[in-house]
Amino acid sequence: MENVIAYLRQHRQEHLAWLTDVCRIPSISTKAENKADVAAAVKWTRDLCQRVGLTAQVYETGGHPLVYAEWCQAAGAPTYLVYGHVDVQPEGDVALWQSGPFEPTVRDGWLYCRGSADDKGQVLIHIRAAAAWLATERKLPVNLKFLIEAEEEISSPHLVPFIEQHRDLLRCDHILISDTGMYEDGWPTITYGTRGLLYKEIRLSGPKHDLHSGSFGGSIANPANVLAALIAGLHDADGRVTIPGFYDDVAEISAGERAQINALPFDERQYLADVGSPAACGERGYTTNERRWMRPTLDVNGIYGGFMAEGANTIIPARAGAKVSMRLVPNQSGERLSARFDETIRARCPATVRLEILNHGHADAYVAPLDSRPMQAARKALHESFGREPAFIREGGSLPILPMFRRLLGADSLMLGFAGPNCNAHGPNEKACLADLDRGAEAVARLLAHLVQ
Amino acid sequence: MENVIAYLRQHRQEHLAWLTDVCRIPSISTKAENKADVAAAVKWTRDLCQRVGLTAQVYETGGHPLVYAEWCQAAGAPTYLVYGHVDVQPEGDVALWQSGPFEPTVRDGWLYCRGSADDKGQVLIHIRAAAAWLATERKLPVNLKFLIEAEEEISSPHLVPFIEQHRDLLRCDHILISDTGMYEDGWPTITYGTRGLLYKEIRLSGPKHDLHSGSFGGSIANPANVLAALIAGLHDADGRVTIPGFYDDVAEISAGERAQINALPFDERQYLADVGSPAACGERGYTTNERRWMRPTLDVNGIYGGFMAEGANTIIPARAGAKVSMRLVPNQSGERLSARFDETIRARCPATVRLEILNHGHADAYVAPLDSRPMQAARKALHESFGREPAFIREGGSLPILPMFRRLLGADSLMLGFAGPNCNAHGPNEKACLADLDRGAEAVARLLAHLVQ
Repeated sequence: MENVIAYLRQHRQEHLAWLTDVCRIPSISTKAENKADVAAAVKWTRDLCQRVGLTAQVYETGGHPLVYAEWCQAAGAPTYLVYGHVDVQPEGDVALWQSGPFEPTVRDGWLYCRGSADDKGQVLIHIRAAAAWLATERKLPVNLKFLIEAEEEISSPHLVPFIEQHRDLLRCDHILISDTGMYEDGWPTITYGTRGLLYKEIRLSGPKHDLHSGSFGGSIANPANVLAALIAGLHDADGRVTIPGFYDDVAEISAGERAQINALPFDERQYLADVGSPAACGERGYTTNERRWMRPTLDVNGIYGGFMAEGANTIIPARAGAKVSMRLVPNQSGERLSARFDETIRARCPATVRLEILNHGHADAYVAPLDSRPMQAARKALHESFGREPAFIREGGSLPILPMFRRLLGADSLMLGFAGPNCNAHGPNEKACLADLDRGAEAVARLLAHLVQ
Repeated sequence: MENVIAYLRQHRQEHLAWLTDVCRIPSISTKAENKADVAAAVKWTRDLCQRVGLTAQVYETGGHPLVYAEWCQAAGAPTYLVYGHVDVQPEGDVALWQSGPFEPTVRDGWLYCRGSADDKGQVLIHIRAAAAWLATERKLPVNLKFLIEAEEEISSPHLVPFIEQHRDLLRCDHILISDTGMYEDGWPTITYGTRGLLYKEIRLSGPKHDLHSGSFGGSIANPANVLAALIAGLHDADGRVTIPGFYDDVAEISAGERAQINALPFDERQYLADVGSPAACGERGYTTNERRWMRPTLDVNGIYGGFMAEGANTIIPARAGAKVSMRLVPNQSGERLSARFDETIRARCPATVRLEILNHGHADAYVAPLDSRPMQAARKALHESFGREPAFIREGGSLPILPMFRRLLGADSLMLGFAGPNCNAHGPNEKACLADLDRGAEAVARLLAHLVQ
């Protein structure tokens, strides 16, 4: 192990050159004109994998290609699958960048450029760890597979079909992902849970065209007023969602987990100031971190109807609508709650308007077992590499790949995050702390050993 | 009187030619390119007034000009001021017109063209009546003034200043207006009341920019959800507005007036079918005609916030807003209720969002005394001319000129409407029934006599 760590430390500059190389490729998957760049980043990744001693191959998917690589000579040892991506978000307004978005630049120990944190820098952590093992020990402690795609930023449209068609190739005991953040700069963080999502749209129509609110007001149902009442009725005074049965399947959170979440340093005033919100709120009886990570919720994502421009227009709108999404937690079923939502809205909607409910999809929540062997191995490896216990957090957003991996490959996921909380992924001046990437590579190198100890 | 009526009947074709002449002028006040046409219609009106024996003059206003005309030689008799307008709405989509919007065409006894009903045809009714008196009797029974403007369709921006600067010129005992409709085709109608208006906009802001609804949902107040609750809270289960004191100043409607309103033929199913609304609703305890004419109400005219395009976007909107207007009845004060509305919303709005309330103006309701001498004279004149008792109705919309005339000139208004309920004012194929215009001119000729009998 000492050799492996020493190798990583000796090859930092070379590994940084890998990262700056791949970050120079503008592999923006959302833009058609960058299609060749995306393919170049995939090919570059394949070449690197081969160079460090993995077998690697590019697969066409129908969209952007992906790389599969592996080293599977640890007979009898468990198999781990590293998932990551080398496509990136568009650079946005270039004027907001201090240095070019695709000109990797080091300032004060941080590498500034698109992809440095999300996710090229974090993908390379795993390749660097494998490279160090193969260079020094000629083997890995476990079997290791890599699935590095290039469509993550466009919601991975070809990932599920690819996995379904390559189940044997991808067979594994556990997934490793580094595509999340750290709770604080320099604090290695394991994200062990994400929320699910259920996204609906309520559309109400009343009169066949906008009506004069003077001539008709008071005698004809106003879809915007009816909509407001329907939405307001979805929460009670305690901030709880009023859909019957909404909380029925919510898994109990252990007192230990609540205590651990609430022991994380958290400055609510600073949190609100960062967001710009004047006061905290949410479901009664829960802290802010519990509310955003562990409790289901319901938000209007958009609302529209009638005259929305500047000034005044005296109409009763013919139509009004709202996009409403719910974040779900284990073991709520998006499918079951979708039906409950529809029934509830249908039952509450008065006969004075016509109702249409659109579905914008759903994703399940995910929570990894905290006491699993990989989780404990990761805790140890991170502690050894960063000199402190990792933070264990959940994330309020949704990662549909996590339940998908569990469903298609029967494997749980371990999410080791090395992006700082202010890394500005998707924004201007995206950055990654080089020291954190280096310690991250050491941690993964140690993890590979601990997984079989 | 017989001579006057006979004269009108003998000169129908000539008077129809007047109407088609002025309707050929595209006096669209809302379009800058029709400025000269508007001025031409005003000048045409002045010339006609002079031709029939009135003194008449065009006044510049700073916007479109207006005509003032008079015959004031009935010493000791009361003075009536006819208000009307010769500007029109744009023609809209010409493809929807069966004949050119500015090519007056008679089909089945109806004159089709823009302005035939609103308001050129109805203005001419009054000039025709005066012309018949002056041609046959060399005098009018009362003093008669005409204030014919050309900015009605753009909310009369220069009318109040003009009246304020010409109070002596315009001094009168009563106002006569024909710019309203008939309850049914061929049924002469007196509109004796209109509702007031109070128009507000609620703007809420929460986070300083849109937030990820996964990462933050449940912990940060969502302005769109808060907005929905505020709006929903403005009505109770009986459809009544919950602003404290909202009904305090509402004048009692007499049992007689309610009975008379409810005796009007009214097919609610047809009303709803015409509008396209699936079911009737409104304040409990009132009929549809009472709700739309005599009761105050509150409607959302527009609502907006967050992601309003097709599809899904998982954000907590930074901002949300709603345009909310109230129709008022005597003796509600727009000014007082404006303050009440603001206080109520401020008190109900949680501290988790920032609130801004915009004012989009207010107008008072108006109800003319039903037992006045002009009202009784009009009832008699209309009965004699149309062979049936006129309908007495209110209108749910607002006509700020009515309380304005009362305030600035101390005069009540008598609104005699001769436009059919399907005249399509402001729409394609606007039309006026020639027989109704002819009977309308006879009715006004009789009215002038009855006013002093």
